[in-house]
Amino acid sequence: MTFPVVGMVGGGQLARMTHEAGIPLGIRFKLLSDTPQDSAAQVVSDVVIGDYRDLETLRAFARGCDVITFDHEHVPTEHLRALEADGIPVRPGPDALVHAQDKGVMRARLDALGVPCPRHRIVTDPADVAAFAAEGEGFPVVLKTVRGGYDGKGVWVVDSEEEAAEPFLAGVPVLAEEKVDFVRELAANVVRSPHGQAVAYPVVESRQVGGVCDTVIAPAPGLDEDLALRAEQMALRIAQELGVVGHLAVELFQTRDGRVLVNELAMRPHNSGHWSMDGAITSQFANHVRAVLDLPLGDPRPRARWTVMVNVLGGDYPDMYSAYLHCMARDPQLKIHMYGKDVKPGRKVGHVNTYGDDLDDVLERARHAAGYLRGTITE
Amino acid sequence: MTFPVVGMVGGGQLARMTHEAGIPLGIRFKLLSDTPQDSAAQVVSDVVIGDYRDLETLRAFARGCDVITFDHEHVPTEHLRALEADGIPVRPGPDALVHAQDKGVMRARLDALGVPCPRHRIVTDPADVAAFAAEGEGFPVVLKTVRGGYDGKGVWVVDSEEEAAEPFLAGVPVLAEEKVDFVRELAANVVRSPHGQAVAYPVVESRQVGGVCDTVIAPAPGLDEDLALRAEQMALRIAQELGVVGHLAVELFQTRDGRVLVNELAMRPHNSGHWSMDGAITSQFANHVRAVLDLPLGDPRPRARWTVMVNVLGGDYPDMYSAYLHCMARDPQLKIHMYGKDVKPGRKVGHVNTYGDDLDDVLERARHAAGYLRGTITE
Repeated sequence: MTFPVVGMVGGGQLARMTHEAGIPLGIRFKLLSDTPQDSAAQVVSDVVIGDYRDLETLRAFARGCDVITFDHEHVPTEHLRALEADGIPVRPGPDALVHAQDKGVMRARLDALGVPCPRHRIVTDPADVAAFAAEGEGFPVVLKTVRGGYDGKGVWVVDSEEEAAEPFLAGVPVLAEEKVDFVRELAANVVRSPHGQAVAYPVVESRQVGGVCDTVIAPAPGLDEDLALRAEQMALRIAQELGVVGHLAVELFQTRDGRVLVNELAMRPHNSGHWSMDGAITSQFANHVRAVLDLPLGDPRPRARWTVMVNVLGGDYPDMYSAYLHCMARDPQLKIHMYGKDVKPGRKVGHVNTYGDDLDDVLERARHAAGYLRGTITE
Repeated sequence: MTFPVVGMVGGGQLARMTHEAGIPLGIRFKLLSDTPQDSAAQVVSDVVIGDYRDLETLRAFARGCDVITFDHEHVPTEHLRALEADGIPVRPGPDALVHAQDKGVMRARLDALGVPCPRHRIVTDPADVAAFAAEGEGFPVVLKTVRGGYDGKGVWVVDSEEEAAEPFLAGVPVLAEEKVDFVRELAANVVRSPHGQAVAYPVVESRQVGGVCDTVIAPAPGLDEDLALRAEQMALRIAQELGVVGHLAVELFQTRDGRVLVNELAMRPHNSGHWSMDGAITSQFANHVRAVLDLPLGDPRPRARWTVMVNVLGGDYPDMYSAYLHCMARDPQLKIHMYGKDVKPGRKVGHVNTYGDDLDDVLERARHAAGYLRGTITE
């Protein structure tokens, strides 16, 4: 057997779904997980329990792997450099991944590439935030710690200098950004392999609720073709310039005046690409695996006119399994993806996908199922 | 967590692909496997190594499971009855499964139901085979041991009384059948749940080489609609009358005079249903899991005009992974499903699926990929 071993750092749902996508390829999948109860650890055979922040744990884990990839972006950049120095291919590598780890580095690099971003700069204290506001349109201003944020955590929208104190408490550099007057959020998902092949998924619309992704529509309804093409090309260019290997999600603001600005980068399979599991010829997870193994990439085109993904968040009702009866009976085409996580209010515990020709119908079916699973819809 | 534990007896590729289909449902999957190297054991977290022929092993395994199902039909019928007596749901249950375990029982039951079968009877020795031949069209006659055969094993086509000795050596009852003058082989795949819901996949054409399934075309090209409907209804009726729970494959001969005769029954996901992984809205594996859990079944309809499955058999060339480069680059829509098995000549080690609107193109792509992986096509 010459089938390679893919080492996945992190046991969350992205690792779980990457394993699922890797099974048909016959590859070996090895997981470094915090606990045996983590989402991916429940379904993977070869699991090492350990702390990814500890270099020796990472090194021991990596020795049995042909390549290392990630469920999240939290592995210290210097650890990734150490693994590379040991001769282990790390994909994406630290020089690319740092742009998804550090928002300050990301903004500086995108500026250098001439990629349109919200107005921004690193700020030092609340008075500096007020100065940043005065340099542009004034408050509100968006503040982000440059490292450690996700799903709305580490992000503040402040209306005054007085409100701007909290982000500085962690002692992490803080990035200030204009609050963009956007029409909607989009995401341009691309996958790139080490030898430079890249594919672009159709640009999707991503709707957030409380800073957390709620609904994704693929492709983004009514999106101007030129703008879609520009967004795809921008994502492909960022992947190439940053040397990304694997999946890159470029989260975008579509502005009222018809521009797209880069909001965030994620270098791993991404919530805005979950629709592809049932809606694309090749899913983001399958293409991520192919990319990190430097295999030719699969066709990213949609299989249906419309695909909708709605996240299933935890509600007050812990027993989601019994809701399957209603959801599956109501919609025999519904695709449920649960992550094996305990239900906690607001926690992402799964998602549903629906597809078809009629967007209103596809949206209604996905929303109904996600709401019923959560317990906010009871009929 | 109220998500159930599905116990799968047998670690082959059907268990592997059932696990893959169960991951999105968030269920727990527990495997009883002969060895840790078995196809499914490589990708499942919760594996018990043991011998399914040993009742106490089965009992200990079943204690952690909410329901038991199977990768194969070799578990002794009396063991299944013992598990049922212990209060463990066994799906399919022994009263159904015995019809897939014992070809004598199957033929007697189908006769009683008036389901058309090849002319047949149990024979006692070579002279009795000659008598069976003389009662009908003469030699050749097909001989089958009533238990233990699969993929052409346990099946003989004999041209004379002298050739008919070997099947009797094992001491297992032998079934004689007329050699049907068939136009082609078909398969009608259905899934049935305990409360009686059932779905029928489109009838497929199944092409065998040397007694082993080689190519499946979904739906069967040029099949008369009435005949297709009759075949689906026959499979649904067999599932209901036999009390099948889970996937039932009814392998059929299409005769020159426009009839369909039942060749074999399989009560588990089946090679003739592998196309559904990429070609149907709900795969046979997903529906098998839903059935054994008594969940509402998923839509079995095709997602493409044509889907073709070709098995990948082991050839002389053990390194199939390096063939991925050519196969994936040539056809970005190709779906590879490898089972993690060591390559041995003639052994089923995987399959490929292709789909599209042009059957010739879809067939060519699947055959090329399977041949290239096997090593019989080198360009």
